[in-house]
Amino acid sequence: MSLGRKLLAEFVGTALLLACVVGSGIMGVRLAAGNEAIALLANAGATAGILYGSIVVFGPVSGAHFNPAVTLVMRMKHELRTHEALAYMGVQIVAAVAGVLLAHAMFDLPLLQPGTRIRTGHAQWLSEGVATFGLVLTILLGVKHRPQAVPALVACYIFAAYWFTASTSFANPAVTLARALTQTFAGIRPEDVVGFVFAQLMGAMAAMTVARVLSLNPLSRDREQPD
Amino acid sequence: MSLGRKLLAEFVGTALLLACVVGSGIMGVRLAAGNEAIALLANAGATAGILYGSIVVFGPVSGAHFNPAVTLVMRMKHELRTHEALAYMGVQIVAAVAGVLLAHAMFDLPLLQPGTRIRTGHAQWLSEGVATFGLVLTILLGVKHRPQAVPALVACYIFAAYWFTASTSFANPAVTLARALTQTFAGIRPEDVVGFVFAQLMGAMAAMTVARVLSLNPLSRDREQPD
Amino acid sequence: MSLGRKLLAEFVGTALLLACVVGSGIMGVRLAAGNEAIALLANAGATAGILYGSIVVFGPVSGAHFNPAVTLVMRMKHELRTHEALAYMGVQIVAAVAGVLLAHAMFDLPLLQPGTRIRTGHAQWLSEGVATFGLVLTILLGVKHRPQAVPALVACYIFAAYWFTASTSFANPAVTLARALTQTFAGIRPEDVVGFVFAQLMGAMAAMTVARVLSLNPLSRDREQPD
Amino acid sequence: MSLGRKLLAEFVGTALLLACVVGSGIMGVRLAAGNEAIALLANAGATAGILYGSIVVFGPVSGAHFNPAVTLVMRMKHELRTHEALAYMGVQIVAAVAGVLLAHAMFDLPLLQPGTRIRTGHAQWLSEGVATFGLVLTILLGVKHRPQAVPALVACYIFAAYWFTASTSFANPAVTLARALTQTFAGIRPEDVVGFVFAQLMGAMAAMTVARVLSLNPLSRDREQPD
Repeated sequence: MSLGRKLLAEFVGTALLLACVVGSGIMGVRLAAGNEAIALLANAGATAGILYGSIVVFGPVSGAHFNPAVTLVMRMKHELRTHEALAYMGVQIVAAVAGVLLAHAMFDLPLLQPGTRIRTGHAQWLSEGVATFGLVLTILLGVKHRPQAVPALVACYIFAAYWFTASTSFANPAVTLARALTQTFAGIRPEDVVGFVFAQLMGAMAAMTVARVLSLNPLSRDREQPD
Repeated sequence: MSLGRKLLAEFVGTALLLACVVGSGIMGVRLAAGNEAIALLANAGATAGILYGSIVVFGPVSGAHFNPAVTLVMRMKHELRTHEALAYMGVQIVAAVAGVLLAHAMFDLPLLQPGTRIRTGHAQWLSEGVATFGLVLTILLGVKHRPQAVPALVACYIFAAYWFTASTSFANPAVTLARALTQTFAGIRPEDVVGFVFAQLMGAMAAMTVARVLSLNPLSRDREQPD
Repeated sequence: MSLGRKLLAEFVGTALLLACVVGSGIMGVRLAAGNEAIALLANAGATAGILYGSIVVFGPVSGAHFNPAVTLVMRMKHELRTHEALAYMGVQIVAAVAGVLLAHAMFDLPLLQPGTRIRTGHAQWLSEGVATFGLVLTILLGVKHRPQAVPALVACYIFAAYWFTASTSFANPAVTLARALTQTFAGIRPEDVVGFVFAQLMGAMAAMTVARVLSLNPLSRDREQPD
Repeated sequence: MSLGRKLLAEFVGTALLLACVVGSGIMGVRLAAGNEAIALLANAGATAGILYGSIVVFGPVSGAHFNPAVTLVMRMKHELRTHEALAYMGVQIVAAVAGVLLAHAMFDLPLLQPGTRIRTGHAQWLSEGVATFGLVLTILLGVKHRPQAVPALVACYIFAAYWFTASTSFANPAVTLARALTQTFAGIRPEDVVGFVFAQLMGAMAAMTVARVLSLNPLSRDREQPD
């Protein structure tokens, strides 16, 4: 598979993901008559639906990362090379922004509208750390134990994480950056992006550690003793 | 499999689909006490449910297109012949109308009631283009990478697209035409049908192009150069 | 597998199904503050969940009919003998009643409370006919084309049918009879049971006919001509 | 697989489960504007999502019990030894408490807040007995008939049981104990824990009995006669 095709898959998948995250949030708020729980239910369900679909169809092409934190973890596991990883991340960010603009266009809103929703503080950062920890751990163990189920695993996990974290679980630096470009339901203040991304990377690293411990080969016990 | 049986499968599947799209919209609005988000949640969930079921059970008979845009794409990919494609499309339109009438009958409403819901303008057309692009791309890549998952893929995608597009994602010319025959939740003004269908066909063609690029055989590089 | 064990499986599965249908309706109405759409969403989702689970776990034991209309169809297809079919139906009815009583007990309601909800008229009967037609067709074609998917097929179909039929899709004579014993959300007036059951049986027979046409063996064309 | 790794899997899975049960309850109530049905819909959907994911990814490591009642049943079936079972149960309780504290921290609430929600009386105990009976029966028959489906089975069953039991189906002694440490949506009064746990154990034992009867080997009839 050429790198160009992989990047096209990452582009289309990430743009669709963001169009869905932002678009379904707009639709939810428009129709929910002030009941944000119904809006979030729609938002979470739509995001789970698009994630399942996109990971199934783009997974065999690019791995369906759609997420610089996942690409970083896969680079650390030597699944792709440094220049590929950097290209993935660049495309993911550009595509995420394109997806947000597409959602605005579909709902006839101003294309450019810097986010105003305050999302900061220890509780929010802890939420993003936990959200990304769970996502990366799910992916790493899912790939190991039942690779065919990874699309459903990610979809189900993210549906849950929308609800059980106080931040509604961005869990993705490209998504976070792009959501700073909308004032709608899914938005975030630009100045709050850095804290989220830092927490996400911490969560991803913690997940790698736990996954490594859980995956230690029990046959090579000598390895475990000395170190 | 004889053509007659294939057309019967397309008829039953498409009629059930429309009965579900229109019927669940009626039920949703009746019960939702004015909260359209809950109605759309029910509408989207029911549609996803019937799509999953119908594609599993009718897929092995007719391919379970239920959609002239999909039949057109399959014709362009030489999956069926011209006279078959035309027969499919005719049956899909007749069945879609029958499904709408059936929904009206089940809910004791006037059978004939031309749609009045305005659905026009660039944002709506863009929405339909994106919706159909995503649907056709999902089908083409799904058939290629994991054919057993196509029913779940289409169901999940359509659930998401109900929410992330401003038009609630008709993504189907026969569905659009038939929904011009109801004044209920799922309706559309007859004069708005043409714009929707045109946008849907544009989206389908764009999806074919992207799917072709993503599916190019990397081993036959000489093929890519000359043409 | 002895008949006794099959009947035990039918009993536990049918009782759980009714406890779920009635119980989730009670819970939905209690919490939904008058919004019946949310109650029906919970009711439909819970029913789909229990159906998926019960069909997977009891299917290998008894076939997981839980429904006299399904047992009748299976008898006509010679999947079980007359005395077995009669025993199945008797157990299904007893178990359905037991499930309703269990739901009442779990919610601390009077155990005996004849239904008062009016469900009659042509629109309701048409709804039950369509609902059962779709259910039986889904089962017959599902068993033929993808037996492993039958639990998910039935669950998804019933979720949809709760919404797209005006009767919320009982589609089951034992369920109908038992629901005449509750005054809660899922109830039905005892005098309306006969109309429902008749419509259900019509729908089941229509589904058998369509399934037979769709399944005709194309290789034995001579068979199709004379008769 | 070393016991240490199994316990780590039980710890992470159980803690995530409780963080999800409690966290999604908090989020649901915060957003639902007083409509508890929407809160419970979110709560049930999120719990189902995390259960599916956690059982898939931790199942191959520890069996993914996350529940002392399940561990007890597995011990009685000789799937693990007494000291392992005790270690499992201890870790499950500690992890459940940790998950509740994590949810409180993510939502910026006081970490320690003994539950105040009254959950007692025969109807509640019957509910817990039924809930656990269904859960354990689903697991035992699922493991026997279709082990790959167990994660989806448990998720679907628990989603349904949230709605069809009056207690919202704790069905897990460690979960019950830990939920006595929160005053939020998912909480329970500490003095009500014992009644719940007792009912859960009764339900689990009943499920073992039914599963044994349903699984009797029809070929070894002599075994059935004497004892």
